[in-house]
Amino acid sequence: MRDSFHQDLDKISDQLVEMTRLAGSAMSRATTALLDADLQMAESVIAADEQIDTLRRELDERSIDLLARQQPVATDLRMVVTAMRMSADLERMGDLARHVAKVARLRYPNSAIPPVMRSTVLEMGQVAERIVVKVGSVIAGKDIESAITLERDDDEMDRLHRDIFNMLMDSKWTHGTEAAVDATLVGRYYERFADHAVSVARRVVYLVTGEWQTDAQLDNEDL
Amino acid sequence: MRDSFHQDLDKISDQLVEMTRLAGSAMSRATTALLDADLQMAESVIAADEQIDTLRRELDERSIDLLARQQPVATDLRMVVTAMRMSADLERMGDLARHVAKVARLRYPNSAIPPVMRSTVLEMGQVAERIVVKVGSVIAGKDIESAITLERDDDEMDRLHRDIFNMLMDSKWTHGTEAAVDATLVGRYYERFADHAVSVARRVVYLVTGEWQTDAQLDNEDL
Repeated sequence: MRDSFHQDLDKISDQLVEMTRLAGSAMSRATTALLDADLQMAESVIAADEQIDTLRRELDERSIDLLARQQPVATDLRMVVTAMRMSADLERMGDLARHVAKVARLRYPNSAIPPVMRSTVLEMGQVAERIVVKVGSVIAGKDIESAITLERDDDEMDRLHRDIFNMLMDSKWTHGTEAAVDATLVGRYYERFADHAVSVARRVVYLVTGEWQTDAQLDNEDL
Repeated sequence: MRDSFHQDLDKISDQLVEMTRLAGSAMSRATTALLDADLQMAESVIAADEQIDTLRRELDERSIDLLARQQPVATDLRMVVTAMRMSADLERMGDLARHVAKVARLRYPNSAIPPVMRSTVLEMGQVAERIVVKVGSVIAGKDIESAITLERDDDEMDRLHRDIFNMLMDSKWTHGTEAAVDATLVGRYYERFADHAVSVARRVVYLVTGEWQTDAQLDNEDL
């Protein structure tokens, strides 16, 4: 039987996993809204973000309450502080999905993404889904293996992000400035989504192994 | 004479103010690097970011140590947790200055910013400097008045950010896709810099007044 502190920590962990589920669902639906110019889906993603924000506030209050009541030290203290940092990352992932949905809404009834770029954006959406599912299992199971393969998914996201820039810089880009601006922002939203996921996974690895991987390669692309 | 807990808290507050100084200096020099195509300055901003990252790690370790040793509750506990959140915001502001410097470096020996957009970007840099100085004084002096005028500076930043988009969407935009991509990213970096500053100021106001302003209007522009 777990003691009261660890029962509370389990509840916090469950809420973090729930946040990954919501952020993943939001980004998946935002991708569909963007590619299919689906206004209703875009609106639903934008409206649902409030739910992730609320979960984050609850989780942070629960964590502060736990610190005050239980006065944990050493690893236990670090676990609670780390949970608050993870909730901040996951809330931001929800924001980024909302941003993608807002681009979809802004260009409705057209799709913001020109045909030549559709498959790349679709793939970015799929990588985002894969990453966020792995983050959930990293949190739920302290699953270090998933944390490692997740880094490879992030490399894949960076490669797709570079593909977007290469298409934009190609002299054959004929879709105009508005589409270039949209693609620039959307590409960055997916890439940042993956960065925050990697950050969450690394925090779990740090708690388990005590070794911190540097963030140097995150958000470090040249554009 | 302040007790040991509040002496430690004063030290944390001093470090946060130092972080605002470094982030402000970084963004100010990044703006110069960008507008003057000054490679050496761009490199110096990119290299100096490590200093802000180190300060953040130190500050977080100091905060965790303080929680473990002093076991604060109620307002004291919230102050320490809030300091850690502020350090995350300030570190991110340093990253955003580094991003601006990287765009400058990428386009050297040219300036990434076409002449028509120079005055707008210059103004964004000035607003960023103004905001970050106010954040420092909000932290150092729990200065609620500055926190309020800072929100108006952020409105100004949002207006300048919209100006960037309006220039890009104008049919008279003749500077090509590469410049449009650069301007889109640079505009977003300044706007996010200001958002994080507002977030820091609001955290101080919350500690002083107990009233939390919603983040709803931050990073909520339609692009």
